[in-house]
Amino acid sequence: MKVLNINPSVAALKPPPIPLVQQSAARYDGKLGPLIDLSQAVPGYATHPSLLEALKSAAGRPELLGYGDIEGETELRVAYATHVSALYQASISSSQTHITSGCNQAFSVIATALAGKGDSMLLLTPLYFNHETTLDMFGIKIKTVATQADNRFLPDIDALRMAITSDVKAIVCVTPNNPTGAIYPPLLINELFDLCAKKGIWLVLDETYRDFGPSDAAPHSLLQKKEWQDHFIGLYSFSKSLCIPGHRLGAILAGEQIIQAVTKIMDNLQICAPRPPQVAVAERLNELDAWREQNRQEILNRQKALEAVIADLPGWAIISIGSYFSYVRHPLDFSSSVEAAAYLAQQRGVVTLPGAFFGSGQMPFLRFAFANATCAELNELRGRLG
Amino acid sequence: MKVLNINPSVAALKPPPIPLVQQSAARYDGKLGPLIDLSQAVPGYATHPSLLEALKSAAGRPELLGYGDIEGETELRVAYATHVSALYQASISSSQTHITSGCNQAFSVIATALAGKGDSMLLLTPLYFNHETTLDMFGIKIKTVATQADNRFLPDIDALRMAITSDVKAIVCVTPNNPTGAIYPPLLINELFDLCAKKGIWLVLDETYRDFGPSDAAPHSLLQKKEWQDHFIGLYSFSKSLCIPGHRLGAILAGEQIIQAVTKIMDNLQICAPRPPQVAVAERLNELDAWREQNRQEILNRQKALEAVIADLPGWAIISIGSYFSYVRHPLDFSSSVEAAAYLAQQRGVVTLPGAFFGSGQMPFLRFAFANATCAELNELRGRLG
Repeated sequence: MKVLNINPSVAALKPPPIPLVQQSAARYDGKLGPLIDLSQAVPGYATHPSLLEALKSAAGRPELLGYGDIEGETELRVAYATHVSALYQASISSSQTHITSGCNQAFSVIATALAGKGDSMLLLTPLYFNHETTLDMFGIKIKTVATQADNRFLPDIDALRMAITSDVKAIVCVTPNNPTGAIYPPLLINELFDLCAKKGIWLVLDETYRDFGPSDAAPHSLLQKKEWQDHFIGLYSFSKSLCIPGHRLGAILAGEQIIQAVTKIMDNLQICAPRPPQVAVAERLNELDAWREQNRQEILNRQKALEAVIADLPGWAIISIGSYFSYVRHPLDFSSSVEAAAYLAQQRGVVTLPGAFFGSGQMPFLRFAFANATCAELNELRGRLG
Repeated sequence: MKVLNINPSVAALKPPPIPLVQQSAARYDGKLGPLIDLSQAVPGYATHPSLLEALKSAAGRPELLGYGDIEGETELRVAYATHVSALYQASISSSQTHITSGCNQAFSVIATALAGKGDSMLLLTPLYFNHETTLDMFGIKIKTVATQADNRFLPDIDALRMAITSDVKAIVCVTPNNPTGAIYPPLLINELFDLCAKKGIWLVLDETYRDFGPSDAAPHSLLQKKEWQDHFIGLYSFSKSLCIPGHRLGAILAGEQIIQAVTKIMDNLQICAPRPPQVAVAERLNELDAWREQNRQEILNRQKALEAVIADLPGWAIISIGSYFSYVRHPLDFSSSVEAAAYLAQQRGVVTLPGAFFGSGQMPFLRFAFANATCAELNELRGRLG
């Protein structure tokens, strides 16, 4: 095959990981029962019927066929500001929000807003693979600081402080964490913010999984700080908590100067997020609290089910567990977690992600997105993994 | 206001142009009748009722709530390959297509795929402003070659040849052109391809407006060349011809190596385009030929209406006219086309885009997106501009 003249940063990118494991899964012959898919973080239950109805109705509205405001539909920005204000007990204005096509886009846009070529961003390992590949493709340098199992995969402030050189524009954290499920305590998030403020850089928090965890309390109190807009940017996805990833909706929470920069970038990237789902989510977002609470409880049940199963399996161990994800050590005789995951998918019908996808030093682990599966399916793992 | 630490390439970007002229339009008091909006390229008629119905129905389908294939829904890739094969009398496979959230995203993705740090892309002036700002924000250098009114705003192959230095990765052309409406003849497009092939670079054709023009013949014959995949990439938007910009759908046509690179980039940018509109468009795309032909004829009527109006207006002149757009010289006594456009919007209720938005040397001109307005509205311009 002729080698074509393309951007070497893109040619060198790893291929998207999810399709890779799905290829192994496709080779499973069903001998042990239906596939149990714990690979991609997708809600393992349906969206609320009233939201599905609203999505349908909005898509049929002729007035939403034209271009929309770059920043997002006013209704959704207002609804999201209301939602966030209640969650964080803060006073957030719609002008401090921007709607995107999912949270990967929110991260891409913020990376572009904060860092040019030659600048660096600081990621924590294990890392979310799309953060790594996004920065790689934009030619933004990556520095990593490891989090450790014996510190519950929480960041070490001193290690971060030492890693902040003058080219570092931001620290990027995912809390609750993907892949470990670790939930950063509010006081630690405060320390992260203080460190960033002191160094004059940004704290970017990807809070995609904040609706799932043992408590519905505010995940942190940064938005109550007077100077939050100077150093904090929050990323969110409507995909997980509303079960609508196929409609692609996410959000950025930031001060107005950042929102203005984001608006310029979004105009270039895609003018605006798709309009009908924005209108539908705006109608339902603040009505579905009881349903969201019920889902949170169900996912906690799934967490308990997974814990019980793994406790029964010799050689297997939960290294970390929290919102949506568990990081699991396996006893399988493979030198690479990629081979272990391929074996489990192909021979045992259990699809997980190998630790290798989440950065260096992650080889012993597998990520289980347990929120995808029912308790009954998780109980099935006893036979499949034993 | 505290100046925050953001990417200087983004801080220096011009603000999005469309909202700027809309601000002037909002100040119009209605004294001469309703606003005539010729600013943004949006179809000035409704989508087909059967497509609206399909959009609604797809958005209500629970099986489309999950993540989709990064490359796009198989149905739409197949339907688009069929559509393109018929139009260009070529044999295109669905594996040579990739679905995006609109054509701006298609361009962003292709710019990232082809050009990294220190690389350049060659644009023709007048240029489409989002091409310029997209490359600026990614830190890709821009070289421009001017097209001239006395050559009907067609590119000069010799001038392009001279401009291709070793850092140039692609020539980007928009045909039919935005802002001039100029339609590049197939033979000229062939010459552009041959030049790119000889130089080992890419020809990126943005063909967003190809469904509108005096003829429904194939816009070019590049896809019949054996080696098209080595040097040609075609960008397209479903927004204009299907009247669904609010749903955000576009497409890339390229060889499989480029599609693989695009897949990596799209996974980072937003995983996949929104799924329900993809399924709806797949169902209707190849059914609506008669309706599309009717729209093409109607837009030709609008072109004639605009030509007749401008011919009657002393001092006004059409410099270029074609698919969707006309480039018009105005007699107004303003040194800047930005001021002229602001005056027309605010005082005369006619919203156009100033030539200044389309690059250097464009000050005498205004862009009229005449496809947005009915013939009756265009006839109204006699009173408004006179």
